[in-house]
Amino acid sequence: MAMAISISISPNHNPVSFSSNTNPCPRPSILLFPKPCISSAFPSLSRRSLPSPPLPRSLLAARCSLLPRPEYIPNRIDDPSYVRIFDTTLRDGEQSPGATMTSKEKLAIARQLARLGVDIIEAGFPASSPDDLEAVRSIAIEVGNIPADESGHVPVICGLARCNKKDIDAAWEAVRHAKRPRVHTFIATSEIHMKYKLKKSREEVVRIASEMVAYARSLGCEDVEFSPEDAGRSDREFLYYVLEEVIKAGATTVNIPDTVGYTLPSEFGRLIADIKANTHGIENVIISTHCQNDLGLATANTLAGAYAGARQLEVTVNGIGERAGNASLEEVVMAIKCRKELVGGLHTGINSKHIVMASKMVAEYSGLHVQPHKAIVGANAFAHESGIHQDGMLKYKGTYEIISPEDIGLSRSNESGIVLGKLSGRHALRSRLLEFGYDINGKELDDVFKRFKEVAEKKKHISDDDIEALISDEIFQPQVVWSLGDLQVTCGTLGLSTATVKLITTDGEEKIACSIGTGPVDAAYKAVDSIVQIPVTLQEYSMNAVTEGIDAIATTRVVIRGDNSHTSTHALTGESVHRTFSGSGAGMDIVVSSVRAYISALNKMLGFQDLSASKAAAAKDKSFQLGFTRVYRIRRCDKATLPSNAKKA
Amino acid sequence: MAMAISISISPNHNPVSFSSNTNPCPRPSILLFPKPCISSAFPSLSRRSLPSPPLPRSLLAARCSLLPRPEYIPNRIDDPSYVRIFDTTLRDGEQSPGATMTSKEKLAIARQLARLGVDIIEAGFPASSPDDLEAVRSIAIEVGNIPADESGHVPVICGLARCNKKDIDAAWEAVRHAKRPRVHTFIATSEIHMKYKLKKSREEVVRIASEMVAYARSLGCEDVEFSPEDAGRSDREFLYYVLEEVIKAGATTVNIPDTVGYTLPSEFGRLIADIKANTHGIENVIISTHCQNDLGLATANTLAGAYAGARQLEVTVNGIGERAGNASLEEVVMAIKCRKELVGGLHTGINSKHIVMASKMVAEYSGLHVQPHKAIVGANAFAHESGIHQDGMLKYKGTYEIISPEDIGLSRSNESGIVLGKLSGRHALRSRLLEFGYDINGKELDDVFKRFKEVAEKKKHISDDDIEALISDEIFQPQVVWSLGDLQVTCGTLGLSTATVKLITTDGEEKIACSIGTGPVDAAYKAVDSIVQIPVTLQEYSMNAVTEGIDAIATTRVVIRGDNSHTSTHALTGESVHRTFSGSGAGMDIVVSSVRAYISALNKMLGFQDLSASKAAAAKDKSFQLGFTRVYRIRRCDKATLPSNAKKA
Repeated sequence: MAMAISISISPNHNPVSFSSNTNPCPRPSILLFPKPCISSAFPSLSRRSLPSPPLPRSLLAARCSLLPRPEYIPNRIDDPSYVRIFDTTLRDGEQSPGATMTSKEKLAIARQLARLGVDIIEAGFPASSPDDLEAVRSIAIEVGNIPADESGHVPVICGLARCNKKDIDAAWEAVRHAKRPRVHTFIATSEIHMKYKLKKSREEVVRIASEMVAYARSLGCEDVEFSPEDAGRSDREFLYYVLEEVIKAGATTVNIPDTVGYTLPSEFGRLIADIKANTHGIENVIISTHCQNDLGLATANTLAGAYAGARQLEVTVNGIGERAGNASLEEVVMAIKCRKELVGGLHTGINSKHIVMASKMVAEYSGLHVQPHKAIVGANAFAHESGIHQDGMLKYKGTYEIISPEDIGLSRSNESGIVLGKLSGRHALRSRLLEFGYDINGKELDDVFKRFKEVAEKKKHISDDDIEALISDEIFQPQVVWSLGDLQVTCGTLGLSTATVKLITTDGEEKIACSIGTGPVDAAYKAVDSIVQIPVTLQEYSMNAVTEGIDAIATTRVVIRGDNSHTSTHALTGESVHRTFSGSGAGMDIVVSSVRAYISALNKMLGFQDLSASKAAAAKDKSFQLGFTRVYRIRRCDKATLPSNAKKA
Repeated sequence: MAMAISISISPNHNPVSFSSNTNPCPRPSILLFPKPCISSAFPSLSRRSLPSPPLPRSLLAARCSLLPRPEYIPNRIDDPSYVRIFDTTLRDGEQSPGATMTSKEKLAIARQLARLGVDIIEAGFPASSPDDLEAVRSIAIEVGNIPADESGHVPVICGLARCNKKDIDAAWEAVRHAKRPRVHTFIATSEIHMKYKLKKSREEVVRIASEMVAYARSLGCEDVEFSPEDAGRSDREFLYYVLEEVIKAGATTVNIPDTVGYTLPSEFGRLIADIKANTHGIENVIISTHCQNDLGLATANTLAGAYAGARQLEVTVNGIGERAGNASLEEVVMAIKCRKELVGGLHTGINSKHIVMASKMVAEYSGLHVQPHKAIVGANAFAHESGIHQDGMLKYKGTYEIISPEDIGLSRSNESGIVLGKLSGRHALRSRLLEFGYDINGKELDDVFKRFKEVAEKKKHISDDDIEALISDEIFQPQVVWSLGDLQVTCGTLGLSTATVKLITTDGEEKIACSIGTGPVDAAYKAVDSIVQIPVTLQEYSMNAVTEGIDAIATTRVVIRGDNSHTSTHALTGESVHRTFSGSGAGMDIVVSSVRAYISALNKMLGFQDLSASKAAAAKDKSFQLGFTRVYRIRRCDKATLPSNAKKA
């Protein structure tokens, strides 16, 4: 953001965002049309072999740039080398077990995706639940109208719908507020899916598909995407026929999903090439790819699809999604950037400097962490075994590194020059937060500042990661129903862990309870349970230190499922699924951090609309009207702790 | 193991291991030679569309099988469709930051790799340090001689060496005890590496390479692998020439590494095909691939290499390795299994039922966790959003699942029928451990059983994951220098966390210290520090609940680096690197679990040879001879906690 420099290239072009890349770009362009500074933002290998001192930033900014993004027209792209990036983190990604996000979190991610330069944001599946519809609508209004940066780029906002009027109505209702709304509808076309899931004939499937595409157009939606689900396993001739019919009906993009992540790159590339060669009318629409990662080949398949002629690539940040996830945005984008000449000279509108931030936000809000050896965004992706001599690092730069950390937005803090510490004021904190992309003020800033000062008292060096942990703990929390007042815990190898918890309602009412447990977290969570009185199952629990050092902030993430279940509709299977809710908390004390995370997940669950009634009921439960309750809760497994001979007898 | 059934196919074949796959295999073989039951262990898609009730295991075992593994001859494979799997988890994987493993851990992983059916185990880089040499030697002796299963399979044990006599001597010394020893030597052949890293001319590089291959052969090693490092960026003609010379010198396998993870599949496939077509003598050796994953394409590149003619694939379990890691064993193997017809009808000797166990062990011992959406072995790889109706799952089996969990060894506990609980005895526990592949007895069994009973008292249902967490905490710990006696902690939002720790030396001497800290872990670690008195930096800290439910066992993993550094030699850069040490601990109390992990990491560090002197010194430190010490340690950051105005003034 703060790095982007807006300049006009020529009277015929819109202003474009120039990334301040550290690599000069002297290679001749292999693209098809002349521009003042057309070149890869990545170095060629031969240049890598001749390390030279870095150029001043100002000079680099003027010499290197993203190529201009062609004007958005739903069914065509005027630049034949431009490939659209369609991000479905908020739809396919959010469908992963435990990845349920609040509307506020979704909105924050959508903003970051816009900043990243994503062309189309699939914001959700509005027919799934009223919450989903609301989330998509707010993204359409707030992200789908306001330019994300100085280039004036406004992403398309897309909503998913099965091939029925109810779904399409919901999707249109949610996205129509955006400047560029899109409805994405789909129906399965493989024999196995038509026979066992849809129980419909080929003729019925084709009729429904084209009628529903036409219906979406009839609502006023000029940008309609159609996906033949499980295209990878569909009969080839039938697939061409379905696509021809939906194109006639008004589809502007046809997306080819490898739904089960089953194809190999050569096979998927051939599928796209065959569709391009054999489908009448295909030249009037955009071909898209959507590759699942079940065999670890999603990125390769996506690139093969692009090489074969697809000009929209569906991806998710960090590659999240159901089962083994989707093609990951960062891998696809960086492979295109690095090996442009091998993928037909393609380019995207992604400003890769925002990748790291997007990756962190998605990991944080979805609760799906990234493994250390994940390509591009893993913690080790740029790390060598520690301790290599500094001169060795310099000497060998380029011998083992094909992407520089700066290209994806790493090592920001080294550049900014501001070091935050205990003497830093609100203004310094706000400046740093702005650099991260968080524009907060008022009470939110006060809350973060208070936490910041608490940490600063205890910790000398406050890193960017620390601040992000606090931000996430304070700002992107769900609507508060309960908040943590105080906590006191005793535990150890003796096994008599005891916790006392004080929770505060939105009205300021305080409730206290204590409990014993098998450990400090068990005890504390049981104490919380005895106050909140909503039966839940803890499904996942994990904790990480944010930075190195023993005085690090610990971030806890939990996933819970309400025993009185919250359901929503699964896009692909059409069945009701139980929602699970993740929560995260940060603190220098791991038990405090754990309790914050649990309360956060409970609040997220309670915030879901269909439980709002019972939420109110629970908060007003008569047994808790006393204000100051002390509940000694008997451990559930007391029976199990009877001596074994007693039970035998 | 217990699943494998050994039968003879014909008088001309060795006994082979038959995997008891749940899928019958009626498809006609596309392989080149006749066998009684040659077929993919995976179903064709068309069969998937016709779900039928599962066959009894006994019947399946007789109908489906792994294809026979051809006899091992270093430089040729008599079955043209057989591709060797070369696992480098213990060498390239262990090179990742923080992934240092103890010899005991390496041995356990090597045993599991042998069980999995890996053809070649690269056990380490013996010249790196005396510890590494010892680890490789013990694997050569214990895994390189004893058949891993009823098939009689004994893997090749390989040691890495740079192109110099000292390295090759060390590698040979370490592996020569194996039935099938191999030395793997390498030198860089790309211009950038030769110029900036080696500072050698092309002629020098060729001379060194062929001399060193010949030297390895002269020691008596009949199985020599050579790798031209950074082959992906090497001049093509020069590469052919180098390979021709090393083949003349006696290399039996030539490995083509994409060292910087830079190639695309089509490009890497072409590289292998070109080498096959243009290198004199290449028909007399095995071509191998080694793909790094920097662009997320390692699996696709490896498959492209196999399709183009490579018959050895270098991989790691979970895809671990430096930076973004390597091609992952499970992805490569399952893609070949699932899509055999698209990769030229290839097959491997891997018994995929042992994949899950191998994945868990490697994640546990390397400290490199696997993300939930990792293909094949991620926690979500087979999970759909929770709560899909059971009948829906059955109805749709095959619609979204291309690999069944049983194929890779998931859902073992459903099959065994034994459920462990608080009444289970030593015998039942031992049986279950044997099923997992842990053959333990005596004191080790006693220790695990004691921990098992402690958990059983508190937890009704003890899952396989719980048992594995305990096993890992008890059995695969480093040599004990310090062990945890007792721990007592008080903490909470008040911020006066206090911990008291009792540690016990191997002599049974008890030391007690207490400390305050910013949280319970900080306090407890500081108390441990004040006893152990070895300055270390905590680099990573993470914790996970092993199962769902609030009464889960928590596993903590920490990575520390000694401030008085332990170094070893990095294989590729040749520089000294600081070793980091991971430790893990399990417990139902998160603070206890955290302290166990820290002590485990400290023990691992202290066990490294070069510190054995200082270890002894520390243990005998005079100030700790009192037996019962109480050390009030002042927090390091006390100065920082002065009121800010005091400092300002």
